[in-house]
Amino acid sequence: MLAQFFPKLQTLFSPASIAVVGASRDETKIGHIVVRNLLDGGYNGAIFPINPVATTIAGLTTYADYHDLPKTPDLAIIALPAALVVEVVTAIAQKGTKSIIIFSAGFKEVGTEGAALEEKLVALAEEYQLAILGPNCLGLINPAAHFNATFGKAHLTPGNLRFILQSGALATSLFDWAASADVGLGTCVTLGNKAVVSEETILRQWYETRKTISSHTRRRQEKEGLSRYQPIGLYLESISNGREFLRYAKEISHDDPIFILKPGKSSGAQKAMQSHTGSLAGNDTVLDAALEQAGIIRCAGIEDMFDLARSFAWEDAPAGPRVALVSNAGGPAVMSADMLAEAGLTLAPLSQKTHDILVDHLPRAAAVVNPVDVLGDALADRYATAIKAVLAEKTVDALVVILTPQLMTQIEATAKIIAELAKKYGKPVVCAFMGGNTVAIGESVLNTHKIPSFRYPERAIKALGHMWWWQTWRQKQRTEKVKPIKISTKISAAIARLVAELEKQKQAGRVALNPRVALNPIESNDLLKKIGLTVPPSAACASFSDAQKFLQKNGAAVLKLASAQVLHKSDQGGIITNIISSDALKKAWDVMAKKVTELRRQKDATATVQIQIQKQIVGGLEIIVGVTTDPTFGKVLMFGAGGVMVELMKDRHLHLLPLDRETIEELVASSAIFPLLKGFRGAKPLALSKLYDLIARLAQAAEQLPVAEIEINPVIVTADEAWAVDGKVILQNL
Amino acid sequence: MLAQFFPKLQTLFSPASIAVVGASRDETKIGHIVVRNLLDGGYNGAIFPINPVATTIAGLTTYADYHDLPKTPDLAIIALPAALVVEVVTAIAQKGTKSIIIFSAGFKEVGTEGAALEEKLVALAEEYQLAILGPNCLGLINPAAHFNATFGKAHLTPGNLRFILQSGALATSLFDWAASADVGLGTCVTLGNKAVVSEETILRQWYETRKTISSHTRRRQEKEGLSRYQPIGLYLESISNGREFLRYAKEISHDDPIFILKPGKSSGAQKAMQSHTGSLAGNDTVLDAALEQAGIIRCAGIEDMFDLARSFAWEDAPAGPRVALVSNAGGPAVMSADMLAEAGLTLAPLSQKTHDILVDHLPRAAAVVNPVDVLGDALADRYATAIKAVLAEKTVDALVVILTPQLMTQIEATAKIIAELAKKYGKPVVCAFMGGNTVAIGESVLNTHKIPSFRYPERAIKALGHMWWWQTWRQKQRTEKVKPIKISTKISAAIARLVAELEKQKQAGRVALNPRVALNPIESNDLLKKIGLTVPPSAACASFSDAQKFLQKNGAAVLKLASAQVLHKSDQGGIITNIISSDALKKAWDVMAKKVTELRRQKDATATVQIQIQKQIVGGLEIIVGVTTDPTFGKVLMFGAGGVMVELMKDRHLHLLPLDRETIEELVASSAIFPLLKGFRGAKPLALSKLYDLIARLAQAAEQLPVAEIEINPVIVTADEAWAVDGKVILQNL
Repeated sequence: MLAQFFPKLQTLFSPASIAVVGASRDETKIGHIVVRNLLDGGYNGAIFPINPVATTIAGLTTYADYHDLPKTPDLAIIALPAALVVEVVTAIAQKGTKSIIIFSAGFKEVGTEGAALEEKLVALAEEYQLAILGPNCLGLINPAAHFNATFGKAHLTPGNLRFILQSGALATSLFDWAASADVGLGTCVTLGNKAVVSEETILRQWYETRKTISSHTRRRQEKEGLSRYQPIGLYLESISNGREFLRYAKEISHDDPIFILKPGKSSGAQKAMQSHTGSLAGNDTVLDAALEQAGIIRCAGIEDMFDLARSFAWEDAPAGPRVALVSNAGGPAVMSADMLAEAGLTLAPLSQKTHDILVDHLPRAAAVVNPVDVLGDALADRYATAIKAVLAEKTVDALVVILTPQLMTQIEATAKIIAELAKKYGKPVVCAFMGGNTVAIGESVLNTHKIPSFRYPERAIKALGHMWWWQTWRQKQRTEKVKPIKISTKISAAIARLVAELEKQKQAGRVALNPRVALNPIESNDLLKKIGLTVPPSAACASFSDAQKFLQKNGAAVLKLASAQVLHKSDQGGIITNIISSDALKKAWDVMAKKVTELRRQKDATATVQIQIQKQIVGGLEIIVGVTTDPTFGKVLMFGAGGVMVELMKDRHLHLLPLDRETIEELVASSAIFPLLKGFRGAKPLALSKLYDLIARLAQAAEQLPVAEIEINPVIVTADEAWAVDGKVILQNL
Repeated sequence: MLAQFFPKLQTLFSPASIAVVGASRDETKIGHIVVRNLLDGGYNGAIFPINPVATTIAGLTTYADYHDLPKTPDLAIIALPAALVVEVVTAIAQKGTKSIIIFSAGFKEVGTEGAALEEKLVALAEEYQLAILGPNCLGLINPAAHFNATFGKAHLTPGNLRFILQSGALATSLFDWAASADVGLGTCVTLGNKAVVSEETILRQWYETRKTISSHTRRRQEKEGLSRYQPIGLYLESISNGREFLRYAKEISHDDPIFILKPGKSSGAQKAMQSHTGSLAGNDTVLDAALEQAGIIRCAGIEDMFDLARSFAWEDAPAGPRVALVSNAGGPAVMSADMLAEAGLTLAPLSQKTHDILVDHLPRAAAVVNPVDVLGDALADRYATAIKAVLAEKTVDALVVILTPQLMTQIEATAKIIAELAKKYGKPVVCAFMGGNTVAIGESVLNTHKIPSFRYPERAIKALGHMWWWQTWRQKQRTEKVKPIKISTKISAAIARLVAELEKQKQAGRVALNPRVALNPIESNDLLKKIGLTVPPSAACASFSDAQKFLQKNGAAVLKLASAQVLHKSDQGGIITNIISSDALKKAWDVMAKKVTELRRQKDATATVQIQIQKQIVGGLEIIVGVTTDPTFGKVLMFGAGGVMVELMKDRHLHLLPLDRETIEELVASSAIFPLLKGFRGAKPLALSKLYDLIARLAQAAEQLPVAEIEINPVIVTADEAWAVDGKVILQNL
């Protein structure tokens, strides 16, 4: 269970004094290691080790009990067996300490007993407004404050790169990597079971304190060779509170990039996650849509995340997608051109002027177009000539430098020149020094000057591609105008009546099936009409002669089996189309009547089964529009190709509610069937504006009504109408 | 221009004596460096430096002229300006040397003048049967023979990993990487301009000498901790002779894995390739299909290639897809489960027995399912327990071990235990020791024991996925039965007549348009009928009354504009469907007649434009079947969704000709519309067997006829027939 309040985190991240409960003289114990880590990190506040027996630990005076402390510490760190933790937290809270880190394992992750203990912690946190990190976590570091509150080997070179990790082990790899790659870190937090403090608590803290990252700070960072950002990397197995998470992430993303590693695409990972942190996977495609909306970059893997972390820590995102490549190797340059395209980037065109400079200064065999091949025998000065020329070029937004170790290659000197020119021209530069030990010296120089370098160009280019994606997201955010849709008061009133009616039915036990109750097709149609959608004329037929009359009036008809118990009618032969004659109608009626009898026999006697007749919409294009409820992110609209194409094309496009008209148009335009909607190969365009209207109304209604799911499949879009032909409505478990 | 013969390569790869033409006393010159490299590499044959002035170079006696040499060297290496090369090659050939490496640049890659020089080399090679490597190459190495014939810094630890590289610079990175990663190399060749020796020449050599890789050698390799294979890595920008290349590659792939890095997916890379090596890109999707057929693994990037190289050098491919993960970190293990699924692998299920062993020996909080989480505080012995248990498990085909550097982690000891157990159980094991400098010692131990280790689990898993793909390819090859299709003599005769007729027409100037000539739709239909396909009844109409008669007889009809000049009829309104009444026919006829008049006015007077009427096939599913000619690989069959779905679904499936019935069935089954063909959601299956027959006949005919392209779009498949509705035929440039 997650706490329902947002604790303040200042004293958790930057405490003025710390107590370590469970401090130990035994150097192999966590309770000793954390005291050692605090001291070794150069923490300059008071440290109070608590131990009932010892008098000093690591040279510090110990206290037998929390109540004995001479002052109230800002932060308490607990390294005790799980069974003792609740009592200790009570004492800590009573003393007035508001921030607590709990290393102890043995809570929710080990079963119901542990979960009960954890709930007690949550209750205490709510009662005393405690910021509890963990339990079952590795703690956190804040290098700028010389603060290492972990029991791992941490890296305390301060920098601008922040992390929130739902895996302590990944943090140890991160610290080791950062130390080796000369990457400085900001506050890095491991979450553990996130009983109280979770990712959105921390994001909110960082959102609220974002103004403290002044433009002065950002300028200082740039002077140090860093980027303007304070990027945030996330490793999460679950997202505790999707909407809050997105809200803060989206705000932060305007200024500082957020990137995430989130497993759970495969069923294997979903099971493993459940065993690792008890996390249940939501729908991964909904997650993708949600992250995209909030400007969060989803990393493809751990390498991808570390590469991007370094790139964002050291380089600003490119202002455009146009990349120049300078290489002493033709093959890798050619491969890189493919990789640029894959990463959503382009080869920058070079002007005649730059071309002339290159022709004048490079050997005849060099490639003077982009990618620029300075040839295998290039010394540092030839690299300098080419790099200067392309960085000075207006059309170049970013540069990738590739180096292979030829016998004459000046690896170190070339690295220095790259660093110098990158600083001078202020455009993002990433490098690929390809090889083994021979190129390591170049990498080391580049690290010192905060130029990201990778052993393979594809890694540099992938990172650049992510950065550009984020940049386009930011640019788009600035120009987007949110125009909320207004539903007419008449429709609102109708919806209100329907909600009331549904509630009444619920209370009368009529829709009492749990956990989800489907409306029958006739009720669904009714609902769609009430929210203002155009539904083909239809009727429930009590007798064959009713159907005959309907056919005479409407020309072409469809017979449908109408039952809340039959959700997939076409699979069960419950739809007969193309009825244009009385004979055909009779035949269809007999088939359907037989099915009704069967169904009434199979299902319980109260099951409502009817035959529905509907006017057939001739021609047009079938699409699917629906709203579902995601357990993490709430209501989501889905749009795509309909009918049999649903299964064939995997053309599903998602967006969290609410959505404005522009977003709806973008969503429709992104689908694979859009070419057909707007008129394919000279065909007439279909009624797009009616379709947008249908989607807008459906979305609006789905937010206001107590429904878990509405799916219209198909919507048939003709030249002048968007017909809601067949709707399925599932009520929320009220 | 490529030589048209296959030179023998023994003396190129393992010469008993070598002359260096253009040897130099200047230590910065290529002509000196290569002599130095030969000596430093420990080459133990005779070396004859040729220099008109010097008496000794690097302590070796020099000769003024090739003719002066005391014996005929097996190999000549040329390091002279391009202008001198032809004369020198003539002298070398006259002396009787058969193998030549030319480092010199300034040939085809610099323009027409150079190309003319290169053609002279090719002519000499053909005249004297010379194996010329280059020009414009870095040479080759053969570490087993202590033979470094490059002017780069090479790595001469012998091993089993072979390479063919159309990039000298990539070779220098490869050598540096191999030295740093303790990877031994076999023969590695850089191709340069491949005037004579190209990738398929070398593959043929390796195919013909493959028996010399005895099972004894393979066993010795395994004793040394290597795999049983002698893998081949390729970097190619062009494939000189597609069919020959595939032929040898496919034969070799049965025993030894081949993997390739081939740029050219993007237009940027295609342009860059042309500038780098003058290579024109073929169709990349055809390339993909061709490589897959030959069992060649296509690498996604340079890192992917190097990772796979190391994995194949050190580990056999897994016998099955079931992978066990053992990790001291939950997060990376969870991510790895996702990556396994992406790589086409599965999480191995563990038996009750293994489960019990793990429960008995691991701490309570450990995950005792797969992925096995031995927890952050695991020492080497706990890793040992878990690894033994899973490697002993029958259901485990391969193991991935993940390690993060916790404070107590025994990195070196764990690496040693992994090496020991990998050897004992003989299953493929790959590792991810995640971090920076702290984990490097573990990697070093693993390298020594030839256990592939990567910094990130996704890299280990991707490599394993490639290996498993190759294993399935091999397994499939063994069971595949090729049943060639027989075309009836009647059809063969008809085809023969048609070929003759086309030739006659060509000679009469009737189809003389170059380079490609399209048959008009009526001729195309005729051709399809003659090769035994079922074409809907159709006729060319001279008058409206012809069309009327046709409609009366056939019930429903389509009017088409029939002209070889109009290839995309529907784009130009040249198809009117659904004609079922005389009135509708009149209306359609008038529209079409107007178009005919317009076309005759626009095009030259001789253009043949007619109105064609065809019986309309009602219902059924539209697909597309075609054969095109790829410049590299020749004739290729294409199958996929037809009609408007062609553009929407990108459902194209390719296979080089010829193909047998089983392959046809597999091809159809792999398409996205297969569910509709075999009967979707309870619908009746369509006439699949007729469709297979149509494809088989079309493929057979396309091989026998002088056609560049035949496309049938749509083929309409109904419940009992596969109708070739609309065919487009383009003749070869005869």
